[in-house]
Amino acid sequence: MKEVKIMKTNELINIRLSDDAESVVIIDQTLLPNETKYITLSTAEELYEAIYSLRVRGAPAIGIFAAYALYILAKQIKTDNYEAFSSEIDKYSKYLNSSRPTAVNLETQLSRMTETVKHMEYEPVVKIVEAMRNEAEEIHNEDVKMCKAISEHGLSLIKDGFGIMTQCNAGPLATSKYGTGLGPIILGHERGMKLHAYINETRPLLQGARLTSYELSELGIDCTLICDNMASIVMSEGKVDAVFTGCDRVAANGDVANKVGTSSLAILAKHYGIPFYVFGPSTTIDLKCPSGADIEIELRSPDEIKEMFYVKPMAPGKVKCYNPAFDVTPNDLITAIITENGKFSPNL
Amino acid sequence: MKEVKIMKTNELINIRLSDDAESVVIIDQTLLPNETKYITLSTAEELYEAIYSLRVRGAPAIGIFAAYALYILAKQIKTDNYEAFSSEIDKYSKYLNSSRPTAVNLETQLSRMTETVKHMEYEPVVKIVEAMRNEAEEIHNEDVKMCKAISEHGLSLIKDGFGIMTQCNAGPLATSKYGTGLGPIILGHERGMKLHAYINETRPLLQGARLTSYELSELGIDCTLICDNMASIVMSEGKVDAVFTGCDRVAANGDVANKVGTSSLAILAKHYGIPFYVFGPSTTIDLKCPSGADIEIELRSPDEIKEMFYVKPMAPGKVKCYNPAFDVTPNDLITAIITENGKFSPNL
Repeated sequence: MKEVKIMKTNELINIRLSDDAESVVIIDQTLLPNETKYITLSTAEELYEAIYSLRVRGAPAIGIFAAYALYILAKQIKTDNYEAFSSEIDKYSKYLNSSRPTAVNLETQLSRMTETVKHMEYEPVVKIVEAMRNEAEEIHNEDVKMCKAISEHGLSLIKDGFGIMTQCNAGPLATSKYGTGLGPIILGHERGMKLHAYINETRPLLQGARLTSYELSELGIDCTLICDNMASIVMSEGKVDAVFTGCDRVAANGDVANKVGTSSLAILAKHYGIPFYVFGPSTTIDLKCPSGADIEIELRSPDEIKEMFYVKPMAPGKVKCYNPAFDVTPNDLITAIITENGKFSPNL
Repeated sequence: MKEVKIMKTNELINIRLSDDAESVVIIDQTLLPNETKYITLSTAEELYEAIYSLRVRGAPAIGIFAAYALYILAKQIKTDNYEAFSSEIDKYSKYLNSSRPTAVNLETQLSRMTETVKHMEYEPVVKIVEAMRNEAEEIHNEDVKMCKAISEHGLSLIKDGFGIMTQCNAGPLATSKYGTGLGPIILGHERGMKLHAYINETRPLLQGARLTSYELSELGIDCTLICDNMASIVMSEGKVDAVFTGCDRVAANGDVANKVGTSSLAILAKHYGIPFYVFGPSTTIDLKCPSGADIEIELRSPDEIKEMFYVKPMAPGKVKCYNPAFDVTPNDLITAIITENGKFSPNL
């Protein structure tokens, strides 16, 4: 039995403060779909590790988590001196920000938190800490509203009976509610539309198989899981009317960094004449980043490809692996990017 | 310790008759790369199961195996009557042929074996059985020569320093020696060329990770394993000068059925301006099959996607899966098809 039937109410609380506000509570996403386990984190090392090891993941969710994390760490700083406090906050912020390099939300939300501190130079530390809690909660609330708005905009792109291909996980587990890329599917289903999701499993960490399949099947949304190398045959069979993905960072020119394989789906979609839509909060757009070439791509451990999840290693120990977590989809392959403010085409 | 360091001599004997010629001996490829175990098969059910469960796999290897298998089964038929013998042979041949529907070699080599029987109507059964052994050995020997010829032709397509992307396994384990798609890489390495293989892991059964990585790393060939959804980023980084794949069935118009994901690589290669080459024996060309649309695509069990190899299931039990083993690459995406007779372009 699962501990919590999260999706029945469509109120997945995958990130929250503990009741005593001394720690952050999350669903350990590395254990899904077999176990729905909440874990409680309070030290800097635990909080860093949760992001690094993808216990919490998805660009918006990481941003919310990091904001709460910085608040929790702020409470642990034993000083009344503003300079000392502020310097500790900067250190913790840099530390958390180094856990994953690609998603811009992590940096953006940590910056909002440190800006809050900077603007309160003449206030007592205890008041600053309280303001940090408010800021973190505001970031969380904004995300809920943002997901709903993105879902509404996305709904205008699809019709009853659509087959929609998804990549990685851009659902409630990656955000706060509804999700980004999955939002229109979940909202459409709530409103009685018949939709069918084709879920790419998304190697190496199988977020599609483990998380998206879990969310959609718990919600009773018709869906089919495939391996990533099956996207082409499924598209060739006319089953896919649109591709929906999330995004981790959008450059100023509309190039999109998202889970590795996204660029492959965009190229296939173009080949088969299928529209390709990217969903994300406007905070994902990084105007300081001119193009995809300027986005740092996180390289992860070979063990994720060779050993993780497996009973035995699935490749010889000595073979090299290349394990980029993301890739860049050039703007000319993207039909539209949908944020809470509406849709725009980067391909103009 | 592995039982056998097969690749040191470049003489991988993955299929042979047992010394008493009462059974077929193969390397159980489902146990690679962790264990090199030879298994001995003699009943019809065992022989069928070995093909169905991919203990022996790769279109040419399946053809050789099936020929030996039919000989082994012929020896077990207890009759001197030609009609009774021939009828049993037909039954066994149909049974073995039903183990996997997509590869043409299985059907072709079984047909050669049954034709041998048909042409010896007036001979004693014991002599027919002996002729079947000769025919099976001839099929095996032809494959060794075929692989060498394909490798030589393929070598003319590459230069020192090339990065070559591979799919599934088209190496010695899939054939008798050198392989088809891997042949030029292995032969080039033998002749002192510096080549680098980018190996797609090939979900769901990971033939790239388990078999191709094993063969190439044992041989000391520089290689990097990637997940299937990383092909696009690797190509975008300029690391790939050519894509080499095997094939399971080539239609008369040059459409190619091969391991699922092949069509995806062909579309990506076209997008990035990389030549896309298909390697296989001329027996893989099925002139009775007008186009790719006429090729039956084998659908396999959802468990291969959700559970196989894993410590725990990697997707919710109730989620549907679509698991086609192959896809069709249209002729206009193929730069050239290379057989033992040379290369030709189906894209004319």
